[in-house]
Amino acid sequence: MFQVKKKNGAARRGEFTCPHGTVQTPVFMNVGTQGAIKGALSAADLKNIGCQVELSNTYHLHVRPGDQLIHDLGGLHKFMTWDGPMLTDSGGFQVFSLASLRKIKEEGVHFASHVDGRKIFMGPEESMQIQSNLGSDIAMAFDECIENPAPYDYVKRSCERTYRWLVRCKNELDRLNGLPDTVNPGQVLFGINQGGTYDDLRVWHMKEIAKLDLAGYAIGGLAVGEPTEVMYHIIEAVEPWMPADRPRYLMGVGTPSNIIEAVARGVDFFDCVMPARNARHAKLFTWSGSINLKNAKYERDEDPIDPQCDCPVCRRYSRAYLRHLFKAEEMLAMRLSVMHNLYFYNQLMQKIRDALDTDQFDAFRGEYSEKLAQKI
Amino acid sequence: MFQVKKKNGAARRGEFTCPHGTVQTPVFMNVGTQGAIKGALSAADLKNIGCQVELSNTYHLHVRPGDQLIHDLGGLHKFMTWDGPMLTDSGGFQVFSLASLRKIKEEGVHFASHVDGRKIFMGPEESMQIQSNLGSDIAMAFDECIENPAPYDYVKRSCERTYRWLVRCKNELDRLNGLPDTVNPGQVLFGINQGGTYDDLRVWHMKEIAKLDLAGYAIGGLAVGEPTEVMYHIIEAVEPWMPADRPRYLMGVGTPSNIIEAVARGVDFFDCVMPARNARHAKLFTWSGSINLKNAKYERDEDPIDPQCDCPVCRRYSRAYLRHLFKAEEMLAMRLSVMHNLYFYNQLMQKIRDALDTDQFDAFRGEYSEKLAQKI
Repeated sequence: MFQVKKKNGAARRGEFTCPHGTVQTPVFMNVGTQGAIKGALSAADLKNIGCQVELSNTYHLHVRPGDQLIHDLGGLHKFMTWDGPMLTDSGGFQVFSLASLRKIKEEGVHFASHVDGRKIFMGPEESMQIQSNLGSDIAMAFDECIENPAPYDYVKRSCERTYRWLVRCKNELDRLNGLPDTVNPGQVLFGINQGGTYDDLRVWHMKEIAKLDLAGYAIGGLAVGEPTEVMYHIIEAVEPWMPADRPRYLMGVGTPSNIIEAVARGVDFFDCVMPARNARHAKLFTWSGSINLKNAKYERDEDPIDPQCDCPVCRRYSRAYLRHLFKAEEMLAMRLSVMHNLYFYNQLMQKIRDALDTDQFDAFRGEYSEKLAQKI
Repeated sequence: MFQVKKKNGAARRGEFTCPHGTVQTPVFMNVGTQGAIKGALSAADLKNIGCQVELSNTYHLHVRPGDQLIHDLGGLHKFMTWDGPMLTDSGGFQVFSLASLRKIKEEGVHFASHVDGRKIFMGPEESMQIQSNLGSDIAMAFDECIENPAPYDYVKRSCERTYRWLVRCKNELDRLNGLPDTVNPGQVLFGINQGGTYDDLRVWHMKEIAKLDLAGYAIGGLAVGEPTEVMYHIIEAVEPWMPADRPRYLMGVGTPSNIIEAVARGVDFFDCVMPARNARHAKLFTWSGSINLKNAKYERDEDPIDPQCDCPVCRRYSRAYLRHLFKAEEMLAMRLSVMHNLYFYNQLMQKIRDALDTDQFDAFRGEYSEKLAQKI
C-alpha cells in the first residue's frame, strides 16, 4: 500500500495506494470540511488545482446532513462528486474544539452539537461507523486532542485512553469493512500519536500504536499552541519509532516552511486550513513570500498574484482586479484567492517531490524554507 | 448593426453586431454589477453557461474601483477578462435607488455615495465619460427613473428633462469616441423611453427619441411597482413608435413568463438580477416550474435540479448535495445555483430563438408562458 521510492536524509519520496487511486507523497490534502471546499470551489476545481487527496470532517458531516443519509446515497465520494483519494478525520478534534458541554468518559465523549445544541455521544465505535458511512479511503482514529501545554499526569492518562480507543477503532473498522452494505470495504485506519509536549509519553505511545500494524500513523496534538521549535523537536523524537514502511501524517500543519521542515524530518502527509483561510483574507502565497492584496500598492498592478505561478487564476487575472473584488466584497475574490493558495500548496508539494526525485531536497529546503516565511 | 432575420407576429428574431461580437436576439444579458457575477462566477463560467452579453453597472464601478483606473488598465473587458459583448447601464437607476441626499437639477444629479457618503455629481456628460472609460460596447443614456405610480405633471417634466439629457448624452459620446485614448471607439448609445404609466407621455417621448437615430432603444421605468398587465400595456403602446430596424431593450425584466410575453410584444434585449438573487435563496428554475431546494422533500433526492437541463450543475450534482450545501451555508451552494439559474435564462432565450427560427413561437409561448410561472 505504501512504498518509499527514495530518501534524501530523513525526507521520503513515496507512493500510497488506496481504493480511489495512488497518491504521490509528500502530499498536502485539501480540506473540504462539510463536503465542499471553502470559497465556492467545486470538485472539478480541485482537479484543476492539482489536489490529490480531499479531506472531509466526520463531526461536521455527522451533524449535517448526517452520515446515514450520505451512506444511503452511495457515500461521500458520490455525494460530492469527488472520485479521487479521500481522508476523513475522526471528529475528535472538532468535538474538543467546537462542541460544548463536553464530558469525556472511558466509553467516549458526550457533547452538544455546535449547530443546534443536540446531545451527541461519540466514541471510537461511533467515529468508525460514521467514517464507514462516509466511505473515505482513510479513516482516522478517534482520539482526545489536548491543548499545549497540559499537565503531565493529564496527558499521560489521556494518551493511555487514546491508545485503548485506538484498539477499539481497529476492531470496529474491521467489523464494518466486512458488512455487506459497506460503502468502501477497502477503507483503512491511520493511528494518531499523542502525548502533548512530553517526549517520553510521545515515544511510549508511538511504540504502542506501532504494534497495531495500521496502514499509516499520524502525529496529532501539535500546532495547538506550542512554539514551532517544540513541534519540530517532537517530530524528531517520535520519528525513529514510526514504522518506516507506513506513511506519516502531521495533522493540521502548516505554513510552507513548516511543511518543508517536517518533510525534512520524515513526514509524508499534511493538511491545514490556513491556505484557504489566508486566501479569504487576501493573504496570498507567492514563490517570493506572501502578499496582502488589500494593500494600496496593488491598486493598479497588472501583474498576476505571482508572475512565477501558472495556476488558473494567475494565468488570467491581475492583482488590480482581484484587489477590486476584495474591496467590493465580491464572492469571486474568495474563490480565485482560495484557488491560488491551494494550487500554491499543491505545487509546493510537487516541487518537494521533484527535488526528492532528483536528490535536490537539501538545496530546495535551503532556498525556500526561509523565503516562503517572508512577507513581501 | 441590427438586423431582423425573422418575425412571428410582433416577435423578432435578430442579430446585433458590436465591437466584441454578434449577439443573437432575443437575448438575456447576465448581470455583473461590479465587474463580477454574484455567486463567485468567473468570466470563464459565463462562457460555459451560454452568456452572450455581460452587463455592468456604471455607478458601482465609478464608486469602486473608479472608472479612470479601469480606463488606465485598458477598459473593463480587459480588467474582468470578458471578451464578449458588454453593456453598461447609465448609473441613473442606481443614483435613484441606492444613493442618498439626492438633488436633481437640469445639469444632472448631486448625491452621496452609498459606500462612503462622498458627494458625487452625475449628469449626462459624466455618465458618458464613465461609460467611455469602462469601454462597454453599448452605453445607456442617463435618465431619471421614477417609481410607479407618480403624478402626471412630475412625470411629464421629468421625461422632458430626460429627453434633453439624451441629446447631451449623444453629443458627449460622439465627442468621446473621437478622442485618441478612447478604450472602445465603436461604443454605441441606446436611448431610454420614460413616461411612467401614462400612454401619451410614453408615446410622445418615444417619438422624440426615435428622431435621434440611436443604435438601440430601451423601455425604462417599468417593473418598478406597477402591475404586470400595466407593463404589458405600456410595451404595446410604445412598440409601434420604436424604430423597427433597431433593437429594443426592456430594462430590468423579469420572470421567464414576463420575458416570453415581452418577446411576443416585440422586445429583443433583457436583463434582470432575479435569476441570480433567487438562486442565492435556493429558488431554482426548471422547465416544469420553480422549486425551493431548502424544502425537506429534496433531502435525499438524487435527481439533478432539473432532469431536463444539461447545464454544468445538472450534469454533475444532486438536489440532495445542493440542499446540503445551502443548509451548511457553503458558498458553493450560491455558485452552483446561480450557474444553473443563469444557464436556464440563457437557455430560455435559445429556445425562444429556436422557436422563432422555426415559426413555432406561438406554440412555445402557449406551452411555457404559464408553466414557468408555477411553483412545483
